[in-house]
Amino acid sequence: MSKPRLRIIPLGGVSEIGKNMMVMEYEDDIIVIDAGLMFPSEEMLGIDLVIPDISYLLERREKIKGIIITHGHEDHVGALPYLLPQLNVPVYSTKLTHGLISVKLKERKALTGAELKVISPGEQLILGKFKVELFPVCHSIPDSVGLIIYTPVGTVVHSGDFKLDYTPVDSKPTDLSRLAQLGAQGVLLLLSDSTYAELPGYTPSERLVGETLDHIMADASGRVIVTTFSSLVSRIQQVIDAAAKHQRRVFIVGRSMSDTTRMALELGYLNAPDGILARLDELHGLPRNKIVFVTTGSQGEPTSALVRMANRDHRQLHIMRGDTVIISATPIPGNESLINRTVDSLFKQGAQVLYDKVAPVHVHGHASQEELKLLLNLVKPKFFMPIHGEYRHLSFHAKLAESVGISKDNSFVLEDGDILELSPQMAKITDKVSAGNVYVDGLSVGDVGSIVLRNRRMLSRDGIVVVIIALNRQTGKLVGRPDIVSRGFVDTRESKDMLDESRDAVARILDRGGTHPADWGFISTKVRDTLNKFYYERTRRRPMILPFMVKV
Amino acid sequence: MSKPRLRIIPLGGVSEIGKNMMVMEYEDDIIVIDAGLMFPSEEMLGIDLVIPDISYLLERREKIKGIIITHGHEDHVGALPYLLPQLNVPVYSTKLTHGLISVKLKERKALTGAELKVISPGEQLILGKFKVELFPVCHSIPDSVGLIIYTPVGTVVHSGDFKLDYTPVDSKPTDLSRLAQLGAQGVLLLLSDSTYAELPGYTPSERLVGETLDHIMADASGRVIVTTFSSLVSRIQQVIDAAAKHQRRVFIVGRSMSDTTRMALELGYLNAPDGILARLDELHGLPRNKIVFVTTGSQGEPTSALVRMANRDHRQLHIMRGDTVIISATPIPGNESLINRTVDSLFKQGAQVLYDKVAPVHVHGHASQEELKLLLNLVKPKFFMPIHGEYRHLSFHAKLAESVGISKDNSFVLEDGDILELSPQMAKITDKVSAGNVYVDGLSVGDVGSIVLRNRRMLSRDGIVVVIIALNRQTGKLVGRPDIVSRGFVDTRESKDMLDESRDAVARILDRGGTHPADWGFISTKVRDTLNKFYYERTRRRPMILPFMVKV
Repeated sequence: MSKPRLRIIPLGGVSEIGKNMMVMEYEDDIIVIDAGLMFPSEEMLGIDLVIPDISYLLERREKIKGIIITHGHEDHVGALPYLLPQLNVPVYSTKLTHGLISVKLKERKALTGAELKVISPGEQLILGKFKVELFPVCHSIPDSVGLIIYTPVGTVVHSGDFKLDYTPVDSKPTDLSRLAQLGAQGVLLLLSDSTYAELPGYTPSERLVGETLDHIMADASGRVIVTTFSSLVSRIQQVIDAAAKHQRRVFIVGRSMSDTTRMALELGYLNAPDGILARLDELHGLPRNKIVFVTTGSQGEPTSALVRMANRDHRQLHIMRGDTVIISATPIPGNESLINRTVDSLFKQGAQVLYDKVAPVHVHGHASQEELKLLLNLVKPKFFMPIHGEYRHLSFHAKLAESVGISKDNSFVLEDGDILELSPQMAKITDKVSAGNVYVDGLSVGDVGSIVLRNRRMLSRDGIVVVIIALNRQTGKLVGRPDIVSRGFVDTRESKDMLDESRDAVARILDRGGTHPADWGFISTKVRDTLNKFYYERTRRRPMILPFMVKV
Repeated sequence: MSKPRLRIIPLGGVSEIGKNMMVMEYEDDIIVIDAGLMFPSEEMLGIDLVIPDISYLLERREKIKGIIITHGHEDHVGALPYLLPQLNVPVYSTKLTHGLISVKLKERKALTGAELKVISPGEQLILGKFKVELFPVCHSIPDSVGLIIYTPVGTVVHSGDFKLDYTPVDSKPTDLSRLAQLGAQGVLLLLSDSTYAELPGYTPSERLVGETLDHIMADASGRVIVTTFSSLVSRIQQVIDAAAKHQRRVFIVGRSMSDTTRMALELGYLNAPDGILARLDELHGLPRNKIVFVTTGSQGEPTSALVRMANRDHRQLHIMRGDTVIISATPIPGNESLINRTVDSLFKQGAQVLYDKVAPVHVHGHASQEELKLLLNLVKPKFFMPIHGEYRHLSFHAKLAESVGISKDNSFVLEDGDILELSPQMAKITDKVSAGNVYVDGLSVGDVGSIVLRNRRMLSRDGIVVVIIALNRQTGKLVGRPDIVSRGFVDTRESKDMLDESRDAVARILDRGGTHPADWGFISTKVRDTLNKFYYERTRRRPMILPFMVKV
């Protein structure tokens, strides 16, 4: 009988960026690492968000010992409100992450019954045959961790999302010595963050941003407005520090920024000297060079405070000539044009705008190539699996591993659903389970599939034409002229004649042969073909055509 | 009586990037510089392309003495096939640009009757009271020029799209000495390219790319596949040169790449040593390290040869393990995800892929900040107007001008349609003419307006529900149950019950009061409101609702 093996199955995070979720299975025990969401790409029309397909887990619900969350970003926790009610297992995380998860579950009314447990880096957690230890890593949110998982076949290290910053804002650098120690003892498998595996060199320290903020607060003769992600607590800390140094007061603007800031202050992840933070009603009378605003809007979100200010659409605040706006964030792919439009509006209002292209006002939270090599060198894993990235990121990461001595045969670039099986001596991809995108659209999870999306795409391109055909109940003959209504196809006034002619074209083909109601399938295909051809010839467009029969 | 003034009116190119078109008017003379198109941004659903609104020109048709084209890129020539038949004036350009315009007009059946004239840099052109002289500039297509326009109020310099490259591939650097000479004589106004005004430093020379290509061709043990814009003739020259050096043969793949290459060879803009270019039927038997392909597909265009090869969908060619693919182009904003998907597919097929993020395989064609300052320093204009860019680019460029001594009051950041009036002593923005986007969708130019686009956006998000209500012709009472058809809203099988209930909800409100056909406006609003509310409560979606009445 063959010995049991460890199975590693990514249900998300290695085919696209986002919706990270990793399954580790050994005999009757399963642990899950992260449960993230992904924001829809542009071809997923109308979709609110995307979560992993967990049918593999649902079929093995009783095996699951817990979900461990590496940090509080949406792409690692965002699917919990949707998946936790189905799985109903304990969730382990550090303190700040726990706070963020609670807020999120409460918002989605999924908090009741959830078993959320706080653990600290260094503590060990027994989950069936797995023993899990958290180690601190630097990332763009405090309290981020990687995992050391002791399994019956060997030790597995999961980096979480990480970078190496020897001078981080919260003074908690990635714990390299613990990793070196593990490396010396022998690590079976390393799973490591590939998000920035394309980038040569090192990711700069947060300190660089701190220095830039300091200079700006010192030099700006007017107000300073900083926009960033509300989860980027260390950036908010840097703004507070720089403001304090230059006797500026800090106004936190907008609901999500206020909520996170309050929570981070309460839990001790944010420190503000007395009298620095101010309420909006204290704004009046304060000199402009004593004012700093912190707000969301770094992605050009139309409802954010910054975008409202840029469009003179905010009830209390507006941009003044001489304001300096700092966009302290990277554009999430797909948001570029919204952000560009916001920057343009800010310039038009007379603000000076600083963003990553023109000034060092942001550093990202993931390791670049040299840091990835350092981690590989310290951990010295027997096997390597790049995670958190699209195929090209994972490929680059595998190449980096090769350059530091991990042979091609021991590197495994998986896609979502692939099973990597490991014994102490060997590893191989053995099989594939169902994995992929589950769409959340409004209240429903998973009902929007390929047909609905294909229809939305078709509608978005050339609109729709509805044809209403009245047939005599007895004779099956056409009654009156077919009616046509269109939306999103042509300007209905300008194209009135063309639409009228198309009604006649339908009438002609219906008048021809005798029509039996039973032939409706045949008729509607005929109507569709005729109109497709007619409209394409006249307009070179292909609206969706929806024939509808009424018996009168 | 006040003296006549020079009027400068951008009809495109200073509110968005693309569709460049500049009007210069003095008394009864108008000249137009460039006539470009813009590719639609993602919210312009279904639109094929965007051209400038030329109603200002159409009202003054008899004044127009000619259109001068600075170079052959789509954002400078692409609107000609649509606008030239309406304007019917001579078009002046250099030889290669002329070739590209002819091809384009022919494709669109607009060549007949077009008056296309070739002029050379240095030549002078008299157009009414304007005297125009072309000077060579470096850009990412050969035969690019800037313009010196002598007007009754002073000299105007228009940079075209340019960069400074002291070692260009075609050995025709931007003519700085001519500009310095002009600067010494006195220039009234400089119009200068702002596309990369955000970027500090200098744009690297094309030579950098040449060196990279040389190394790759030398080192690659397999085939090399280079993808770039077909208009980037100098890049194709570099590929041919590097291939020749390393005894590789060059296969030009795809129609548009073949067409441009042939034209450029004929006109002498591309030089290939004998025996370098090969036909696909010569491929067989050639060792892999003797092969180079040049193809389009750098933007991830689904129908391009490269993307077909990446997806194993090309009839003759497919990617082999060991191929090196070079993407020698910058992503056009909006194309990033298509390109990323192509890179991922290439990696999956076993190719090594090099693109601008990971290797110096492309340099762009526009001046960076230091080059812009140099131009300002040489030309020393009295007045300055940044062109070719969005508001933030123009703002940065105006700031650069300020830093080299052009006062804020003498810099003019315009938006499309603004009129800048100049006398020898002064300049000011005096008025605004109608300008903006004209959408081309299929055969029609300009019929798609805001209503059609709004409808397409609505349809793309949550689809459509058509409600068919049969009313008795005499009594106005509901006959039968209302019918409902939806597309792109929900999965119609899974949501059958919900859709059924919604039919009942409509029936209930129609059964209530007595219904007169004359009340149709009232009824349809009522139906729409009821269903909006019903669907939003059940699904949190807002499909378009289209009630339709049939009298029976």
